[in-house]
Amino acid sequence: MRRDKSTESVEDLLSRFRKRDMTALARAISLVEDRTPEATALLEKLFPSTGRALKIGVTGPPGVGKSTLVGGLVSRLRKHGPTVGVIAVDPTSSFSGGALLGDRIRMGEVATSDGVFVRSMASRGSLGGLSSATHEAAEVMDAYGLEWIFLETVGVGQLELDVADSADLTLVVLMPDSGDSVQAMKAGLMEIGDIFVVNKADRQGAELMVDEISMVFEITVKEEIDRPPVLKTAAMTGEGVGYLLGMIRQMADELQTSGELAKRRKVRIANQVSSIVEREMLKDIWKNRDLKSRVRHVTNEIFGRRTTPYAAARRIVEDLDRRAGHSGGSK
Amino acid sequence: MRRDKSTESVEDLLSRFRKRDMTALARAISLVEDRTPEATALLEKLFPSTGRALKIGVTGPPGVGKSTLVGGLVSRLRKHGPTVGVIAVDPTSSFSGGALLGDRIRMGEVATSDGVFVRSMASRGSLGGLSSATHEAAEVMDAYGLEWIFLETVGVGQLELDVADSADLTLVVLMPDSGDSVQAMKAGLMEIGDIFVVNKADRQGAELMVDEISMVFEITVKEEIDRPPVLKTAAMTGEGVGYLLGMIRQMADELQTSGELAKRRKVRIANQVSSIVEREMLKDIWKNRDLKSRVRHVTNEIFGRRTTPYAAARRIVEDLDRRAGHSGGSK
Repeated sequence: MRRDKSTESVEDLLSRFRKRDMTALARAISLVEDRTPEATALLEKLFPSTGRALKIGVTGPPGVGKSTLVGGLVSRLRKHGPTVGVIAVDPTSSFSGGALLGDRIRMGEVATSDGVFVRSMASRGSLGGLSSATHEAAEVMDAYGLEWIFLETVGVGQLELDVADSADLTLVVLMPDSGDSVQAMKAGLMEIGDIFVVNKADRQGAELMVDEISMVFEITVKEEIDRPPVLKTAAMTGEGVGYLLGMIRQMADELQTSGELAKRRKVRIANQVSSIVEREMLKDIWKNRDLKSRVRHVTNEIFGRRTTPYAAARRIVEDLDRRAGHSGGSK
Repeated sequence: MRRDKSTESVEDLLSRFRKRDMTALARAISLVEDRTPEATALLEKLFPSTGRALKIGVTGPPGVGKSTLVGGLVSRLRKHGPTVGVIAVDPTSSFSGGALLGDRIRMGEVATSDGVFVRSMASRGSLGGLSSATHEAAEVMDAYGLEWIFLETVGVGQLELDVADSADLTLVVLMPDSGDSVQAMKAGLMEIGDIFVVNKADRQGAELMVDEISMVFEITVKEEIDRPPVLKTAAMTGEGVGYLLGMIRQMADELQTSGELAKRRKVRIANQVSSIVEREMLKDIWKNRDLKSRVRHVTNEIFGRRTTPYAAARRIVEDLDRRAGHSGGSK
C-alpha cells in the first residue's frame, strides 16, 4: 500500500508508465504527493498527454454519502467502457481518519475492479500543498489515459473550493434534514456546484430540501437555463444514480459545445502558471542573503518594541524594490 | 453576536479600546478576522502594547474535551486574578460546526464571567488566512491587557501546527483508548507539545496511555529533563485540572528564566516579518501589467499543449529577473 522507495529514474518510470503499468501510475502519484524534485520533471514530461480526461469534483459535508455515490457512478460508468480514476482527498485523515477509512471500505468493490484506480490523499504538509498535489495527481491520471477522474473532498472550507478549481464540473452532495443547504450557502458551495445532489433521498425531507435549494436558485439566478439541476439519489440502493450519470454526461457535452469547458480549463492553467511564478519568485527572493540578515536584524528591534512587524517589513520591501531598480536584481 | 457594521474610524475605536471597552475589543477582533485594510493600521497602533500576555496553545483530536479543560483552567485562573482570553479556532465550522457549538455551550459558564473574553474563529477564507487571523486576534487581546490567552484548535493537521506557532507553550490533549497517541505522533503533535494531557482519565486505559506516551519520550528524547510532562485530567469532574494549571505556571516560569520564551517569540516575529515581506513582494510583482499579459499569452500556448506550465512559468520568472537586473524593478 505505501510508497515504493526504489531509486528508479524518472526515465525508467516513464517508460513503465507508457506501457500502462499500474504500479508506475501509483509510484508517479507518490512522487507528486511527496513533492520531490523528480515530480516536476515527471509532470513536465507527462503534460503533453494531458487534457483528455473529464474531471468531476464531488464535494459536500462529511457523512452525506459521497464515497458511496462515487462508487455507484463508477460501477455504472465501467459498464459503458470508460476507465476511471478516483482521488479521495481528506485533509483531516492524518488525525482522525476514521470516516474516510469507513468510506474506502464501502468503496472496496469498485476499487479493485479492472480499469479503475482509486487513490486517497491525506494532508502531510500544508493544505495548499494538498490541493496542488491533488491537482497534479489528477494530471498524472489524465496522462495515464484514465478517461473520467473523480475528485472527492471531505468538507473543510477552502480546500473544497480549491479542489473544485481543478475539476471540469462539480457535484455538490447534501442530505435531507441536516441544515446542510444553509451551511452550504454560507460555505460558498452554492457558487461552485454545477449539479446539486440530495443523497439519502429515502429519508424524510428529501423533497423539501430539493425545493429549498431550487428556490434559492430561482431567487439568485435570473435565467432559468443557468440554474443548476437539483437531483435526488439514494446511493446505497442505487436509486437515481443512473439518472445522475446521464445528467453529468449531458452537462459535460454542453460545456464542451458551448466553449465553457475550454474557458474553465484556461482559467485553471492561468492560475497554475501564476502560482508557479509566485513560488519561483519567492525562492529567488530568499536566495538574497542580505534579506535574511535584514529579517534577523529587525526581529531584535521588533522584540524590543522599537518598531512594528508591519513597518519593518515594508521598509525591507521598499529597499529590495529600490535595489532591484538600480542594479543586481533579486538574485 | 455578529460584527458591528458601523463606520467608526480606527482612531475612535482605539480610544474606546484604551478605555477598556469590551465591545471595542470585539470589534477590533472582527476587523482582524475580516482582513480589512483598517486591521493593519490597528495592529500597528496596538503593537507597542503587546508582548505581555502568556499564550497557551491547546490542541488535540476532536472530542477529547479540550473546551471543557480550557473552561476548567479558566475558572481556576480567575480565582487567582489574571484576566483571560480564549480563542477557539474551528476550520470546519463554516460547514459542520456542530461539535464546536456543543463545546461552547459547555463553556458558557466561564464565557460570560468577568475578566474573561471568549471568541470563536471559523474559516471564512483560506486556512492560511485563519491562522494569521488567529495570531492577530491574540495580539489584539494581548494589547487589550488580557494576561493569559488560550488558543484552542480542533484537529486539522497543518492548522494546529500553525496555531501552535503563535503560542508560548502548547498543551496536547488526548484521551484514553482512542489510538490517539499513534495518530498524534503521525500528525507531528509529539514535537510541538510542551505538556501532554490525557483527559477523560476516569475512563479505562488512562494509566496505560500515560505510560505509552512517556515511553515514546524515553526513547526519542535523550535527556530526562527535556522530556515533556504527561499528566492525567478529568475535566468534567475537575480532577487534575488544578495540578495542570500549576504545571503550566511552572513551565512558563522556566521558559522565561531560561531565555527559551524570548527565543520562541523571536522565531515567531521573524516568521511574521518574512510572511509580510513575501505578501508585499507578491503584490508588487502583480502590479506589473506586462506579467499579467504574459500569463494570458502562455495560457493559450499551454492549452494548445505547445508548452508546459512549468517551462512557461520558468521563462516568465527568468525574464522578470533579467529585467530587474537592467532597469525598472518589479514595480
